[in-house]
Amino acid sequence: MTTRLPHTLRSDARDNRERILDEARAVFVANGLDVPMREIARRAEVGPATLYRHFPTKEMLVAEAFTDQMLACRTLVDEGLADPDPWHGFCLVVEKLCELQARDRGFAAAFMSAYPHAMDFTAIRTSSLTGAAELIRRAKDTGRLRPDIGLDDLILMIMANNGIHADTPAARTAASRRFAALMIQAFQASPASAPLPPVPRLMPAMPRRKSERSITG
Amino acid sequence: MTTRLPHTLRSDARDNRERILDEARAVFVANGLDVPMREIARRAEVGPATLYRHFPTKEMLVAEAFTDQMLACRTLVDEGLADPDPWHGFCLVVEKLCELQARDRGFAAAFMSAYPHAMDFTAIRTSSLTGAAELIRRAKDTGRLRPDIGLDDLILMIMANNGIHADTPAARTAASRRFAALMIQAFQASPASAPLPPVPRLMPAMPRRKSERSITG
Repeated sequence: MTTRLPHTLRSDARDNRERILDEARAVFVANGLDVPMREIARRAEVGPATLYRHFPTKEMLVAEAFTDQMLACRTLVDEGLADPDPWHGFCLVVEKLCELQARDRGFAAAFMSAYPHAMDFTAIRTSSLTGAAELIRRAKDTGRLRPDIGLDDLILMIMANNGIHADTPAARTAASRRFAALMIQAFQASPASAPLPPVPRLMPAMPRRKSERSITG
Repeated sequence: MTTRLPHTLRSDARDNRERILDEARAVFVANGLDVPMREIARRAEVGPATLYRHFPTKEMLVAEAFTDQMLACRTLVDEGLADPDPWHGFCLVVEKLCELQARDRGFAAAFMSAYPHAMDFTAIRTSSLTGAAELIRRAKDTGRLRPDIGLDDLILMIMANNGIHADTPAARTAASRRFAALMIQAFQASPASAPLPPVPRLMPAMPRRKSERSITG
């Protein structure tokens, strides 16, 4: 959700702001976050002064560009938690996460990025992760989710799903749908389950509480 | 394996050739195959004439750059086929494929690319795919591999594994090892298996025989 601007903001300023955000999202998704601010200004056809007036730091620009995706993720986790059957809720999150991401590559970029000083963004991300950890805990209690699956496996899935590409958006969505179903097969507890090798820490500076740390154990 | 050159090729020509191949591999892996030939010449610090003397077409350069990876893949599939237990052979291929790829991002680039006119390369790739399809068929006969898994699921896995990244090579390898184990869980037949959604056709111009077409069901 783009922060609402005061009515007094002139419409060309609003246009500039939206154009900067659109271009920033496109270029971050295509080329990662290392793109210089001046390149974003050039693409958005504004001067550097205009860019810095709207977004004094790159961190603020990145956070603002991906807030929508982060909020969609938080909403999704809430839906999973609201499901009376936690295993069903967990599967829903896996499926919808892969689907959202297939439609919007910015989704993974948002999720994987750490912006310790962009407080709103970090707060939403932390609450998504905390909610996902809680859903995992509940799904394990039902006996349907393998006890050795943790938050890092969801991160692994998000990264992996991001590697999938196809010629058309429809094929991309279908591929991610199949991938999500395979991951659900992989995550579920079954008599045939063999122990999994450990998962390394994948996300830089992921905010974790002590109580969450044992989940991937 | 780089094609052996005649002894008469002067050593600076050999150096140029190796340097071109090294730079081409690096840039193809980082930026895809759309990089212009002149950019590869620039990075390899040779003139365009030298580049075209060694590799008259870009297709020849791409094929030569990735022949090693393609041969490693073919060797791996042969190892899987040689295993007296086809399910075990299939798991071996899944694990080693993910591991090779974690160490060498060119591997996925090689596998996913289609070069209809680079005959040697295409022949090796086709024989890898045919061998993998045969291994899948045999593993299904044991009852351990789900009947609805096909070659396209291995392609999906290769693409997905390519999306995984980590801060260090060791973490990258560990992440791919866990991912491979999850995929094996996903691929195995078990009483709890639910039907999978269809997998779309993912690889452009994948050479297939009619007999292979039914594999993904």
